[in-house]
Amino acid sequence: MATSDVINERVGELDPSRRVLLGPGPSDVSDRVLRAMAMPTIGHLDPEYLVIMNETCDLLRAVFQTENELTLAVSGTGSAGMEACVCNLIEPGDEMIVCINGVFGGRMQDVAERCGAVVHTMEVPWGEIFEPSAIADMLAKHPKTKAVGFVNAETSTGAYQPIPEISKVVHDAGALVLVDAVTSLAGMDLRIDEWGVDACYSGTQKCLSCPPGLAPVTFSPAAAKVIDERRSKVQSWYLDMTMVRRYWGDERFYHHTAPINMTYALREALRIVVEEGLADRVARHALNHRALRAGLEAMGLRYIPESSLTTLNAISIPDAVEDAVVRGRLLKEFGIEIGGGLGPFKGKAWRIGLMGTASTERNVILVLSALSSVLGSIGAKVDTDAALPAAMGVFGAG
Amino acid sequence: MATSDVINERVGELDPSRRVLLGPGPSDVSDRVLRAMAMPTIGHLDPEYLVIMNETCDLLRAVFQTENELTLAVSGTGSAGMEACVCNLIEPGDEMIVCINGVFGGRMQDVAERCGAVVHTMEVPWGEIFEPSAIADMLAKHPKTKAVGFVNAETSTGAYQPIPEISKVVHDAGALVLVDAVTSLAGMDLRIDEWGVDACYSGTQKCLSCPPGLAPVTFSPAAAKVIDERRSKVQSWYLDMTMVRRYWGDERFYHHTAPINMTYALREALRIVVEEGLADRVARHALNHRALRAGLEAMGLRYIPESSLTTLNAISIPDAVEDAVVRGRLLKEFGIEIGGGLGPFKGKAWRIGLMGTASTERNVILVLSALSSVLGSIGAKVDTDAALPAAMGVFGAG
Repeated sequence: MATSDVINERVGELDPSRRVLLGPGPSDVSDRVLRAMAMPTIGHLDPEYLVIMNETCDLLRAVFQTENELTLAVSGTGSAGMEACVCNLIEPGDEMIVCINGVFGGRMQDVAERCGAVVHTMEVPWGEIFEPSAIADMLAKHPKTKAVGFVNAETSTGAYQPIPEISKVVHDAGALVLVDAVTSLAGMDLRIDEWGVDACYSGTQKCLSCPPGLAPVTFSPAAAKVIDERRSKVQSWYLDMTMVRRYWGDERFYHHTAPINMTYALREALRIVVEEGLADRVARHALNHRALRAGLEAMGLRYIPESSLTTLNAISIPDAVEDAVVRGRLLKEFGIEIGGGLGPFKGKAWRIGLMGTASTERNVILVLSALSSVLGSIGAKVDTDAALPAAMGVFGAG
Repeated sequence: MATSDVINERVGELDPSRRVLLGPGPSDVSDRVLRAMAMPTIGHLDPEYLVIMNETCDLLRAVFQTENELTLAVSGTGSAGMEACVCNLIEPGDEMIVCINGVFGGRMQDVAERCGAVVHTMEVPWGEIFEPSAIADMLAKHPKTKAVGFVNAETSTGAYQPIPEISKVVHDAGALVLVDAVTSLAGMDLRIDEWGVDACYSGTQKCLSCPPGLAPVTFSPAAAKVIDERRSKVQSWYLDMTMVRRYWGDERFYHHTAPINMTYALREALRIVVEEGLADRVARHALNHRALRAGLEAMGLRYIPESSLTTLNAISIPDAVEDAVVRGRLLKEFGIEIGGGLGPFKGKAWRIGLMGTASTERNVILVLSALSSVLGSIGAKVDTDAALPAAMGVFGAG
């Protein structure tokens, strides 16, 4: 096997650098989660694994703040969760309103159209958010709308879209509320039941601080009823909740082999969230965000106007500063990953995540120091001495 | 958080039992693979991760025995690989022939119909295989057929469907060859290029002995051309190869966040395959299978007639022996998992896998001894003393 020999010589033992992951995800994964993931694989129908699945569902319900029976982890990353929510609720010809104010609303439109939905899009400029009254107007124009989809925490812009008021107008119109909570679950307050969310998806690699690979989803009884009463098969066999739920439920009907070790990891990540307590966790994310924001603004950096997430900080790149140079040096010299901009923000914004395990005072200080150092050394017009005192002031005030 | 406290008390530290996984998958995962999987998570666009992706593709090409550029790991389990192959090749209204001789052919029909294919099914009784001439006849009846899908190694029956002759008749008719190699890749000989396979998918949890969670896929240039020339979007956004390939390729266009640690695991599992060498690995699976078969048959157990896979042994459960009792005791008393039957074989067949890391002389001896012990203790009509000598005879003869 000449080819194999060549590959064998070239592809050595895996030895990735230890990064500090302060981008838009993945976030740093704790050793507890990594250790859990490396536990011995057992069968996907092993009685012990079925207990682990049940426990994972219970933990997911606690973190989603829901009683929804149909709550589980889809065997794919966050985008598979989006597709699972959309393709299970939507049948060809159904009308859906999708709110677009960044990458992920745009993605939802694409997914919904591929499912055969008649999509009515609402758009505001990237970074802005939607008024409930505007959504009510749109629903009045399209009274047959089956679902309204929007992004709670837009990872591409930092915009936070509040949920409760929109839920009310959507429910008043008899439609379902579909929420992208990829960057909010377990980092910001998110109350599925109290806020009337009918379908919600997230990813594991953001505020849960678990490696990417699973997508937590939850469906309200109303959404589950819509799925039960479908006239057509779900177009994706893999994501078909009418079958997947029979595997996660008491029936244990074989559908596909679950990603067993990823479930181990998610279960441990969820245990860590529950141990900390949701309220404390949300407060920690908020405090570290305020400190980072104080430091960045004291330095002279500006946030994207509507960037208000506590889990992700979207800031404008100063004039004459080269995006790739700065991010490259942060990675190379400090082992710190921050994110670049997407779409219209490419080259114009940085995205600094403080998610889950990575949302710490230490990381706030570290990234402010590193950024000050790099920006100072390239002569950027920022006040590099001001950052740390401003951040420390926030921590001092608690 | 009263609910959280309750969960926190009840859901303790993860501590799964160490099993010997001799079912239809997952198979035992080596510590090397588990350790690699637990390496620190890095970003999905980190330059180091991009190298890891390239290396993984190179290793996949070596193991698939292909030069296909479009070779990568889909971010889902084997069934997602099936759906990825079908939904990328098929557009609504396309005709497809699907060969059904077990669970997975049936699944392929379902997947193809959900993609809008006009599916022409060919069926033979479970456990039997298809004659190339029958497929040629079917193609003559349906000359517009775009693809013919069949299962190389039917995990539900143990049937092995040879590939080269079928490829020839399918190509003669101008159609594409789509092969399920979930239970053959890296355990039995599989030559994508030499045998003319246009699209092939597998899973990680079978003969690669990696935890479930990724689906290796490969597309020939002809299949890639079909994808390039689609008139409609792929119905699954998540599995859309026209976008996924831009992320795995040089462009590194962001699509979805890859399951980073799962990629670590797959890369290590593939390294192990390449280190052993494909020919030696195939020979090892064959030898251990022959020894197990000799032992089981000496005991008086009978194989499902066409069960000829070397990676999975499908055997009839003796009359008056209760499936669940035996499998339950193997698991509880010996920590050994073997599989039950699916569909018409439910309660009637056992499926004993010897895949990847788990295909060892030690496991052959272990499962024969354990099965002899359990069957002997319930008074089954089997010759429990004959199994080991028969197996040892095969090992002795090399």
